[in-house]
Amino acid sequence: MQPSTLHQKPSLPATTSDRREVLIERFRRVRAATDAIASPLSAEDCQVQSMLDASPIKWHLAHTTWFFETFLLAEFAQGYRVFDDAFKVLFNSYYNGVGEKHPRPQRGLLSRPSLAEVLAYRAHVNASFERWLRTFDLGANPRVLSLILLGFNHEEQHQELMFTDLKHLLSINPLAPIYSNNAPHPAAVGSAQAAIDWIGFEGGIVEIGFNKQTDFSFDNELPRHQALITPYRIANRLVTNGEYLSFIQDGGYNDHSLWLSDGWDWVRANAIDAPMYWRKADSSSWREFTLRGVRELDLAAPVAHVNYFEADAFARWAGVRLPTEFEWEHAAAHSSALDQLGDAVWQWTASAYLPYPGFAPARGAVGEYNGKFMNQQYVLRGGSCATPSGHTRASYRNFFQPDKRWQFTGIRLAK
Amino acid sequence: MQPSTLHQKPSLPATTSDRREVLIERFRRVRAATDAIASPLSAEDCQVQSMLDASPIKWHLAHTTWFFETFLLAEFAQGYRVFDDAFKVLFNSYYNGVGEKHPRPQRGLLSRPSLAEVLAYRAHVNASFERWLRTFDLGANPRVLSLILLGFNHEEQHQELMFTDLKHLLSINPLAPIYSNNAPHPAAVGSAQAAIDWIGFEGGIVEIGFNKQTDFSFDNELPRHQALITPYRIANRLVTNGEYLSFIQDGGYNDHSLWLSDGWDWVRANAIDAPMYWRKADSSSWREFTLRGVRELDLAAPVAHVNYFEADAFARWAGVRLPTEFEWEHAAAHSSALDQLGDAVWQWTASAYLPYPGFAPARGAVGEYNGKFMNQQYVLRGGSCATPSGHTRASYRNFFQPDKRWQFTGIRLAK
Amino acid sequence: MQPSTLHQKPSLPATTSDRREVLIERFRRVRAATDAIASPLSAEDCQVQSMLDASPIKWHLAHTTWFFETFLLAEFAQGYRVFDDAFKVLFNSYYNGVGEKHPRPQRGLLSRPSLAEVLAYRAHVNASFERWLRTFDLGANPRVLSLILLGFNHEEQHQELMFTDLKHLLSINPLAPIYSNNAPHPAAVGSAQAAIDWIGFEGGIVEIGFNKQTDFSFDNELPRHQALITPYRIANRLVTNGEYLSFIQDGGYNDHSLWLSDGWDWVRANAIDAPMYWRKADSSSWREFTLRGVRELDLAAPVAHVNYFEADAFARWAGVRLPTEFEWEHAAAHSSALDQLGDAVWQWTASAYLPYPGFAPARGAVGEYNGKFMNQQYVLRGGSCATPSGHTRASYRNFFQPDKRWQFTGIRLAK
Amino acid sequence: MQPSTLHQKPSLPATTSDRREVLIERFRRVRAATDAIASPLSAEDCQVQSMLDASPIKWHLAHTTWFFETFLLAEFAQGYRVFDDAFKVLFNSYYNGVGEKHPRPQRGLLSRPSLAEVLAYRAHVNASFERWLRTFDLGANPRVLSLILLGFNHEEQHQELMFTDLKHLLSINPLAPIYSNNAPHPAAVGSAQAAIDWIGFEGGIVEIGFNKQTDFSFDNELPRHQALITPYRIANRLVTNGEYLSFIQDGGYNDHSLWLSDGWDWVRANAIDAPMYWRKADSSSWREFTLRGVRELDLAAPVAHVNYFEADAFARWAGVRLPTEFEWEHAAAHSSALDQLGDAVWQWTASAYLPYPGFAPARGAVGEYNGKFMNQQYVLRGGSCATPSGHTRASYRNFFQPDKRWQFTGIRLAK
Repeated sequence: MQPSTLHQKPSLPATTSDRREVLIERFRRVRAATDAIASPLSAEDCQVQSMLDASPIKWHLAHTTWFFETFLLAEFAQGYRVFDDAFKVLFNSYYNGVGEKHPRPQRGLLSRPSLAEVLAYRAHVNASFERWLRTFDLGANPRVLSLILLGFNHEEQHQELMFTDLKHLLSINPLAPIYSNNAPHPAAVGSAQAAIDWIGFEGGIVEIGFNKQTDFSFDNELPRHQALITPYRIANRLVTNGEYLSFIQDGGYNDHSLWLSDGWDWVRANAIDAPMYWRKADSSSWREFTLRGVRELDLAAPVAHVNYFEADAFARWAGVRLPTEFEWEHAAAHSSALDQLGDAVWQWTASAYLPYPGFAPARGAVGEYNGKFMNQQYVLRGGSCATPSGHTRASYRNFFQPDKRWQFTGIRLAK
Repeated sequence: MQPSTLHQKPSLPATTSDRREVLIERFRRVRAATDAIASPLSAEDCQVQSMLDASPIKWHLAHTTWFFETFLLAEFAQGYRVFDDAFKVLFNSYYNGVGEKHPRPQRGLLSRPSLAEVLAYRAHVNASFERWLRTFDLGANPRVLSLILLGFNHEEQHQELMFTDLKHLLSINPLAPIYSNNAPHPAAVGSAQAAIDWIGFEGGIVEIGFNKQTDFSFDNELPRHQALITPYRIANRLVTNGEYLSFIQDGGYNDHSLWLSDGWDWVRANAIDAPMYWRKADSSSWREFTLRGVRELDLAAPVAHVNYFEADAFARWAGVRLPTEFEWEHAAAHSSALDQLGDAVWQWTASAYLPYPGFAPARGAVGEYNGKFMNQQYVLRGGSCATPSGHTRASYRNFFQPDKRWQFTGIRLAK
Repeated sequence: MQPSTLHQKPSLPATTSDRREVLIERFRRVRAATDAIASPLSAEDCQVQSMLDASPIKWHLAHTTWFFETFLLAEFAQGYRVFDDAFKVLFNSYYNGVGEKHPRPQRGLLSRPSLAEVLAYRAHVNASFERWLRTFDLGANPRVLSLILLGFNHEEQHQELMFTDLKHLLSINPLAPIYSNNAPHPAAVGSAQAAIDWIGFEGGIVEIGFNKQTDFSFDNELPRHQALITPYRIANRLVTNGEYLSFIQDGGYNDHSLWLSDGWDWVRANAIDAPMYWRKADSSSWREFTLRGVRELDLAAPVAHVNYFEADAFARWAGVRLPTEFEWEHAAAHSSALDQLGDAVWQWTASAYLPYPGFAPARGAVGEYNGKFMNQQYVLRGGSCATPSGHTRASYRNFFQPDKRWQFTGIRLAK
Repeated sequence: MQPSTLHQKPSLPATTSDRREVLIERFRRVRAATDAIASPLSAEDCQVQSMLDASPIKWHLAHTTWFFETFLLAEFAQGYRVFDDAFKVLFNSYYNGVGEKHPRPQRGLLSRPSLAEVLAYRAHVNASFERWLRTFDLGANPRVLSLILLGFNHEEQHQELMFTDLKHLLSINPLAPIYSNNAPHPAAVGSAQAAIDWIGFEGGIVEIGFNKQTDFSFDNELPRHQALITPYRIANRLVTNGEYLSFIQDGGYNDHSLWLSDGWDWVRANAIDAPMYWRKADSSSWREFTLRGVRELDLAAPVAHVNYFEADAFARWAGVRLPTEFEWEHAAAHSSALDQLGDAVWQWTASAYLPYPGFAPARGAVGEYNGKFMNQQYVLRGGSCATPSGHTRASYRNFFQPDKRWQFTGIRLAK
């Protein structure tokens, strides 16, 4: 998932000074949460880029800081001293509007700046940001408040990526290191063992998109607009490891008729026979690599780390389908029954990630946040055990290419 | 575009014998049209696979024959003698349900069977097919008629691919060979020079999909269903070479803000600065490789051989957008004003190629026709100068990946 | 093997007119031999480039003609009309000194000029060459005679490549076509079943290189110079299929200790378990693809289509080694005992392909013939069943990279 | 350069106890030297593998330790407790005889074990080794002493690789970090500006290979044998940056006739126009990245970081050639005149890296040290500013592929 310009409806306090305090408090909290993820890690753990899709933890620490420095301090804070001129290029992710950027595949090769320097960078920007926020006239330029909230949400998105990038890094180490016994992990829920309960909805013209009942949304959730849906039923819970194991045992990975053509090519080219972090314990049982170490596969927990191809093939095998993103959003907005296991893993939808009618990206480089990635990706809805609390909402659109599975991604069925 | 199971509403004659005659007549016509495309070519021209996306002409000649042999004669014609057992594998395109297939990238390496043998294969199947059709009880199994019509439409699709694959082959030859002075080429239309006329449509719930007013559709046009569209305006004509040249001269290929992220990567990785077959004549003028030879670029003709990224970037530069496939179909069904230049080039839409609600592929191997390709492609509508006459209709859905441009693909704008 | 400037000692007739007749006669013979190789083949067979190492037969037909046109007719024949200006680039193999060249990997994509046009090209150059040779004053420029002889030998080298490139092309066709029942194929020799007879030689300072007892050598055989060898013994015959099968059955392809590091990587990356054209008939027996069709493996015939890595590993397994090129040449020059099976397959030596002391390439573009390829290749000595009769001599140096095995390459042991 | 079994002539003390002391003293010195190279570096600097040819510093620290543990302690030290079972695989470089090995391209992805753990591993092995050496009966198994000396020399080789791998890592960092102002760097010598003095030698049969006047040689320097050389002259000094700049300014990188074919392909595919670490300061001057930072190019210093292709092209441009390894060794053994600049950079020779007549690798896994790499590499002679003092000798054979240039490699001419 890539980050975005925002359109928030301030439920922030009305008075300037109260608003300042709330923003400073939220800034501190989001920044501290990022530091907390990195704190159990060594400088080496923070250094490595374990695959092209991932970035080093050190890079996440720096890039989220660069975001505040580049889009806020450097623009609006009079007299702000840039921490290091070279960082403008080194920690630019993909904003062509900002200028050059260090090549993404080489992020893990930068042993300098050190983790210590990056932490000093964070401290410098933290202090500068608070100092600036205490005096800046937020009312003078409404775009500034939008950018501040975007900065918060952007950093939250990177918090989730830190967990998933780290999980990949540790997974490829033969020592199978444990990150933490409190690390994000999709939990089993008692009712998961029960048969799926299919929740029915009437069709008709429904409202889709951000409804402005919170402060903030990404630009890709707008404009709110009408969509036509036909009557449908959606599962009250996620597909479990046990159910997915039945698919495997039934030859799911060997039956071409269940797969999209590109998916079948992917299965065969990579000899795929299970979700990403499953490991065969013996001929009949599986274990799973997690951020808490290698464990017995919990059959009652929701299946995670499957990609769109797998989710789609599983649904076809089960004789049903994936929901569209409109069905998902409508159901989420109108029923509390989805909440069971609802936030354990992101849920693939059958919808391509495309702009809503009338979508317009924000002005300036932050306009590159979401719109330019609307190509050949699928929308995921919900959230995961690695998503910061409060980060998502019913209209939230996450998105990945159909072959990716290093995120906590799973399956909710519809029909 | 890939081929598909069908759902036809026979407007074929009602009596069995009349129906036979019509089918035989259509069979002869479609088979002869294929032969006619190959007839000006040497055995060598028919041998080569000039890139992974293309196939040799010889392969097209054989595969379309294999289709009738495999799905009809071998299934339903008692006593049919297969021409050559090895062809079952050699000329299977992608039907996993049929069994093994020769690797696609190696199609051009098969110097045997020779062109002459492939033509003998065609003659064998032609004769066998007619013989069978004269006696087979078409009424006994309605699926057979569907398969026959699918065979016709399948072969017509390959006729278009033969032209576009051939165009690529000849284009990479430094001798710049001319195929034929009557070859498909998007023609200029007088009115193209005039400003675009924007045709407006009301929004609302509209019917989308095949409406059964002809014999045949592909499965991906079904089921007919409702869709919600908002009021929109669509251009009465295609974008011209002259207009596209303005985009180039205005720096369109150098401005990242016009491009999707994947498109921008594609432009830079391949140093793209013009449509596929444009060639710089000198610093200020362009020529164009065509099946009729290299010619001056006709500024009044519709731009062709642009991919989705280019079509999308052009629309953004022009301050408008591409139509959705629903808008396109609705406009085509309700206005004759689109006909101008309407069939010169396929028209990229902003819609991902996905199944219609309730879509179900046909039974058996032909069910692999369309559904399994519904991933990471965009829908094109209309038709092109290389499309056989009568092949398409308003509900017809063509589809390609966003980076492909060897088809006759162009741009119609909307807003 | 690449071709070379020459240094010949004319044993050609002394008088100008006799010499002309001999040269014309040899020109006709070499040109006709090339045509004869192609004559059983279709235009399609002549079109395809089946792998990067190979070239289309059509290209060989044209390039050998280009050689005479470019280095002789265009240089020395007054009033010579170039057949087609575009061919200068199209059929240049690798002579940077001649100018641009068509990219090697795209040789098989040129469906034009057709085979018929290339044959007309050959006829045009043949006639022009004879006409020119009848009147040109050969005595005026000794370099011209050298170039003529080089042209003959160059074309002979391509004759061998035509056989081996064709063999690869036919081998990848599932129809396993037969080229000809008279095609080159390493023949078994009665004595091959007998134990190897080790022929001993004294060490000392020996003369190496072309000794000028024939008309012609390539530049890489010169200068003749002294080399120091120690006493050695060399096998009187080649290693047979039967012996190589013992190596396989003894686990030769599974024992890393027998292989060079790069060789072991090659074995594992390509899952190699036999010589190039061996095919498992069943669990205990092998068949072999040949230009004469697929046949039972002849255990008494010399093993062919093994690369340097395999030859070296076999020798290590056998407890001996490969000869150096100096040992080979010395033995060949001083013993007739090597003749048994001596010309069935080329014989890998342990010598890197490097210049002899004082080596200097010829002036001009033909100087690119051999010298520039003296890097990371190994010398092969002898000749093969596909080598034109009379083409080689004791000082002849063939050369290939250690992973190549589509030539008729085999093993002679030494110790 | 890869490391090797040894054949040493003990100039070690004769008595057992004295010998122990000398060996312990040498062990401490070589181990401390390795630590000293790493000591200015952060954990992150030690983590990264900047390219496939390089390894992380942390890996070097561990692998050199693994060598002593695996080949000595685990074999001969009774009761030795292996530090971590997983390290047997993780830090095996290429010894198939030892078993599995972690894939080389993934060395930089192992964030665990940490640098601290690797240093603890070193301490554990250091202590165990000394303890064992104090009591082990060295006289009982002469192979053990050989292995100890091999361990020393092996670690010294890795010390050089640490410098060159590190140089590459720092060079790709846009911050251009300085390693140390005392880091290895080829120094200019006053006389370098003077014209080359050509030192002449008589030809004849000479003795080549290790002459046993020191304790140790690698196996590839043996057996000592005779070679025939012809009279030659060799440059008294290395080619300087100034001379190499003349080659560049004369169009050396644009003239195909100076290059081996593979070299020319390399130049063009990589757009090479200067030695590896040169950086254009402006249109007329160059700077150089060094371990001491970016500096003005010193025209009087020997050119470094050129590969074989460049050395060979330079020599051809200069109208001379590279020496053979036999010429180099003979000259080094018989003249002190080569000493000028003699150890600043390794010197490419024209000799392929092949076994000496009668070469036999050592028994066991250490036999994989040198022999299996004798393929497609060239011999370098001399030593460099990064080579530990006393590590090399006249018979020392270093070797690399012709396209490598991250070592301190330069040019000495001959004719």
